Amino acid sequence: MTTAELLERRFRVLGRGSPLFYDQPLHIVRGAGVWLYDADGRRYLDAYNNVPHVGHCHPHVVEAIARQASVLNTHTRYLHEGIVLYAERLTSWFDRELSMAFLACTGSEANEIALRMATVCSGHRGILCTKFAYHGNTTAVAQISTVLPPPEGLGPHIRAITAPDSYRGARAANGVLSPAAWLAEIEAACASLKESGQGVAAILIDTILSSEGLPAIPAEFVARAVAIVRAAGGVYIADEVQPGFGRTGTHKWGYQRHGVVPDIVTLGKPMANGHPVSGVIARAELATEFAAKVMYFNTFGGNPVSCAAANAVLDVLERERLQENARVVGEHALAGLERLMQKHELIGDVRGHGLFFGAELVTDRRSKTPATAETRRVVNAMRERGVLISRIGVHDNILKIRPPMPFSNENADLLLATLDDVLQAL
Amino acid sequence: MTTAELLERRFRVLGRGSPLFYDQPLHIVRGAGVWLYDADGRRYLDAYNNVPHVGHCHPHVVEAIARQASVLNTHTRYLHEGIVLYAERLTSWFDRELSMAFLACTGSEANEIALRMATVCSGHRGILCTKFAYHGNTTAVAQISTVLPPPEGLGPHIRAITAPDSYRGARAANGVLSPAAWLAEIEAACASLKESGQGVAAILIDTILSSEGLPAIPAEFVARAVAIVRAAGGVYIADEVQPGFGRTGTHKWGYQRHGVVPDIVTLGKPMANGHPVSGVIARAELATEFAAKVMYFNTFGGNPVSCAAANAVLDVLERERLQENARVVGEHALAGLERLMQKHELIGDVRGHGLFFGAELVTDRRSKTPATAETRRVVNAMRERGVLISRIGVHDNILKIRPPMPFSNENADLLLATLDDVLQAL
Repeated sequence: MTTAELLERRFRVLGRGSPLFYDQPLHIVRGAGVWLYDADGRRYLDAYNNVPHVGHCHPHVVEAIARQASVLNTHTRYLHEGIVLYAERLTSWFDRELSMAFLACTGSEANEIALRMATVCSGHRGILCTKFAYHGNTTAVAQISTVLPPPEGLGPHIRAITAPDSYRGARAANGVLSPAAWLAEIEAACASLKESGQGVAAILIDTILSSEGLPAIPAEFVARAVAIVRAAGGVYIADEVQPGFGRTGTHKWGYQRHGVVPDIVTLGKPMANGHPVSGVIARAELATEFAAKVMYFNTFGGNPVSCAAANAVLDVLERERLQENARVVGEHALAGLERLMQKHELIGDVRGHGLFFGAELVTDRRSKTPATAETRRVVNAMRERGVLISRIGVHDNILKIRPPMPFSNENADLLLATLDDVLQAL
Repeated sequence: MTTAELLERRFRVLGRGSPLFYDQPLHIVRGAGVWLYDADGRRYLDAYNNVPHVGHCHPHVVEAIARQASVLNTHTRYLHEGIVLYAERLTSWFDRELSMAFLACTGSEANEIALRMATVCSGHRGILCTKFAYHGNTTAVAQISTVLPPPEGLGPHIRAITAPDSYRGARAANGVLSPAAWLAEIEAACASLKESGQGVAAILIDTILSSEGLPAIPAEFVARAVAIVRAAGGVYIADEVQPGFGRTGTHKWGYQRHGVVPDIVTLGKPMANGHPVSGVIARAELATEFAAKVMYFNTFGGNPVSCAAANAVLDVLERERLQENARVVGEHALAGLERLMQKHELIGDVRGHGLFFGAELVTDRRSKTPATAETRRVVNAMRERGVLISRIGVHDNILKIRPPMPFSNENADLLLATLDDVLQAL
């Protein structure tokens, strides 16, 4: 089937709304490690996908899936060692107080559990999230995914707060977002939720603020916001779908950079290298109270094959020391991006943690005017030259670079050289 | 690890709220076809699980998963033949007007998409569901899962209508649930939603009314209810998670027994034999309008491995003629249950479609007093004798028998003989 025919048939049965990457969509047929191959046999360096966390089609994960699928795949209404051993191992990766686990299938489902847990346990309704956040696609979670405002409208229980912007300085209602202005905004949101009679159930934050543009988050921003929310009777939900499982290099979890342990943590994408697995880790008292009030059961959640896949991912992360790799290669790549910034006026800022970077493109460094059109051209030109990245941010002008964890210094050098060429030729 | 130790460790990390079957939980380690094996090597006839639709660990499905997992597992932002070919094949199993597909991971996610589609396209909020229904575990879907009333409370946009009860005759607010009383209740619900300013977005029904106790649904009940809802500007969502993929024997889909084609169909559990796959099939105009208003993307939904698994299930259903098997073995088993009813006073009613039966237990046939305690004893005694079933219904007094589709006459005979023994010994 030609790519044109495939595209036409896809439009007919899936519609034109189902999003596709790049001006010329890619028809990918094979993956291995950090490489993807298209239908013509052309190879692409994958500097975008975090779902194949330990590398595309890692043989250890594939083998675990194939072996368990041939032996048993049922649900958690029967006892099985797989889920118990995996949940014990997974919780051991967290701070001690985060000791209980729920397994589900998608990040949306994990955030659904977290929101229901916060609401049911606090008896409150109000949720604080950040402006321009993404947390998933179900009705309740779409409400806090302010990057794609739901046509159903935002519920009266949502308060979207200004996210930090370490490059341009976010403009909050009360001036440039200083620590004082940020805290004042959190205070005001909590006060407004209390006044409305809904109360404060939770603050939910992607601890690396991915959709928001990957800003450097000032020290104590999160800890102080959480203190305000807790004082109002709410809990802190850390969405670790993006930064979790060692991606930041320095820490296993994004929340650990902010100096405060969450009450609930949600996990998704990278958890089982693409097998549909997600999870919620919570303080025992919250998990116990929630489970006593809601008979939560997820048909596919925590099945033996899902647990085998997720457990194999932890094996590979440990054996191949991939968090350390993310730290080392991340530093190397960031230094390279900084060198490119010296050379190319278009790059206004570079920032990142481990193997997750943003490079913000501007038409003018003084005015910081977003180079949105150029960013799109750069992303497409990179794809034409065989390197896959994407873009994020309020102005869609930030290169999003977030490769599988086995990304090497050599891979980073190819990425940097290609970006150098593309910027030169722009 | 002993079963007692496994149970204790499970409680510690997953909590005591995570539901387990049977007074003595089963520690299952292996499955094949219609058989499950526990840690002591004991064999159980599986007459309960519909998720392993074509049989536990069917080699054709296992091979499809293993093969595709080793080649590529990405997402739908790249073109891939797997999802297009599968979606074309799947929609060809439906009435012609149901021509477009969305793929997700769980039945809850499928019902979330359907509810959002109905709400966004109609511009209305109100949802009609049945009393004692189960449709999933997310916030919005828990609202219509009236079998487990959510502690958050039912939203003002929900109207739960009385479900038919072909054995005792359901008591609606307006008398015994006759066709006229049923339609009057639907009319009243629609009128109340309009009056409240919310309007009617949809009626959502499990087309076999599984949690409600598997009643025979009088002819034209559904068609006439749907006509009222459509006249009020709402759509008809058929939840096919239970009856779909040929389980009823006579039809591929449960809705086909009711003489009206839905606007939206939701699919789940049996779709990929346990691999986390779900889907929504919709009329093209609804799917197109929804996709234009909501940028729906599901990270794991429709990935190449999920599509390979789901496609392999359709292969097996066709090659092994499993719908026809469900019809033939279903008739055989139902006749056997009717003979048991002649013999055992405890059985007040038997009913079913294809390979999904209910046998309602009562302490007295005249008063139809639910034999709830006895039903629990029967289910546990069956497990002790190596046959797995469960129970459903408003009074938890209906034996729920819903085996994998390759269930044979010989398997049915073993189920019937065991049930005969258990009832004899009660």
